[in-house]
Amino acid sequence: MKIAIVGLGVVGGSFAKALKGKGHEVYGVDINDTTIAIAKAEGTIIEGYHNGKDIVPECDLTIICLYPSLILDFLRKTTFKPGSVVSDVVGIKSSFLNKALEIVAPDVEYISIHPMAGKEKQGYIYGDAEVFRGANFIIIQHPRNNEEKIRQMALFAMDLGFRPARIMNPEDHDEIISYTSQLTHAIAVSLINSDTQKYETGKYIGDSFRDLTRIANINENLWSELFLNNKEYLLESITHFEEKLSEMKKAIMDDDIETLKKNFIEATKRREAL
Amino acid sequence: MKIAIVGLGVVGGSFAKALKGKGHEVYGVDINDTTIAIAKAEGTIIEGYHNGKDIVPECDLTIICLYPSLILDFLRKTTFKPGSVVSDVVGIKSSFLNKALEIVAPDVEYISIHPMAGKEKQGYIYGDAEVFRGANFIIIQHPRNNEEKIRQMALFAMDLGFRPARIMNPEDHDEIISYTSQLTHAIAVSLINSDTQKYETGKYIGDSFRDLTRIANINENLWSELFLNNKEYLLESITHFEEKLSEMKKAIMDDDIETLKKNFIEATKRREAL
Repeated sequence: MKIAIVGLGVVGGSFAKALKGKGHEVYGVDINDTTIAIAKAEGTIIEGYHNGKDIVPECDLTIICLYPSLILDFLRKTTFKPGSVVSDVVGIKSSFLNKALEIVAPDVEYISIHPMAGKEKQGYIYGDAEVFRGANFIIIQHPRNNEEKIRQMALFAMDLGFRPARIMNPEDHDEIISYTSQLTHAIAVSLINSDTQKYETGKYIGDSFRDLTRIANINENLWSELFLNNKEYLLESITHFEEKLSEMKKAIMDDDIETLKKNFIEATKRREAL
Repeated sequence: MKIAIVGLGVVGGSFAKALKGKGHEVYGVDINDTTIAIAKAEGTIIEGYHNGKDIVPECDLTIICLYPSLILDFLRKTTFKPGSVVSDVVGIKSSFLNKALEIVAPDVEYISIHPMAGKEKQGYIYGDAEVFRGANFIIIQHPRNNEEKIRQMALFAMDLGFRPARIMNPEDHDEIISYTSQLTHAIAVSLINSDTQKYETGKYIGDSFRDLTRIANINENLWSELFLNNKEYLLESITHFEEKLSEMKKAIMDDDIETLKKNFIEATKRREAL
């Protein structure tokens, strides 16, 4: 299959690296010459282009790994091969997918995907095929999709190491993701920013603090877009969390050891079930 | 040095394993026969006892790895070798240390320590010398302490793989720990318990959710003791965190992308500084 990866950042780079040796013809589109040179030297792409127009119209699959705000513009400017599959990897779907579907031609199979594998780093060199191994993969299905193409996308993802894909509608995706992904980032950022910095914090941390703040190293442009484009669901998820934390706070204030234990036991049960 | 480890759970077990081959005579005290048999078979202890009285009075160092609520009772029942060092590894210090000092004889060097290396598992078999490697280590100094003995404890910890110890008073310890350790556990528990469970959550998580909930698998007896014995500092840390989260929530509500970005940039800067 002839594949174009548009945007050779950390996600596009991971795709390029994971696709190596899988028998496809992979091309890259990126504005950065150094990135293209490295990818070519590593043999993850055959050729790189500044402009999608120079390669995308010939490709059977185009994976767009750009910032959400840049994708619609890319879709407007680009003509895709009839019958080909075009995918984006944007972390929020409902507000975005309808706009995309208004732009792409009806003879193009638009399949929005969410590979749940990331890194707190930016750029092709941090792309890593290993992060796909055993990671969750979501395919967003819309009424115009062809069942067989969805099935092929699921197989494609498994071939790259992902777990069997979950297929869902954009609203359900955005609701669950507001909890599992966006709320966690809001928490990590708030945790590290709530440090009074009275002590030299780094000398007094264990793995728990390291784990909870790893994702506080965050791409501010990407995540502010993601947060604001999913605000209703995200605000709801934050509120649910605040209620639980406030319940625990009250138990501490009241020396209510039974409520604390009940919360800890429930948390342990849920974590083990994961 | 003749060393007694009292309580061969996950922390005591880690000490026993880390001490192996370091040239000490190590003994264990535990109520569980199987635990003692395993530790002897692994050669991490020379002999095990149900009762501390049978070995502790001969030891130069006693490391008490019991639940906070059991330690004072143990101190009351036990006679220590004059001039020997007695340590506890309790996660909160101010409310506890004064009580301990009232019990132990003045000719005993009581050094309260906090090895910041843990596991979300219980029991000797999960003890692991590797968790000490590069971990933080805190020594709580009180007016009765001998400087030279404190220095020896710091060397002892480094010999087990810890980073150079931080020496501080019990109040400062409890304040910083309420933030780096207890708040993180309160957050992890609240996060997983705030799941509406409308979806099969495990299929829609990435590393961020895994990281933030790892410690939600929590020992309810130990942590309810730790929370309630540090309630003033912990409530303050929770409040600081709530304020930051609420600031972010307001920014999302108001589509205030500048405040969001400002928070993300600050978080990234702080995380990188760790």
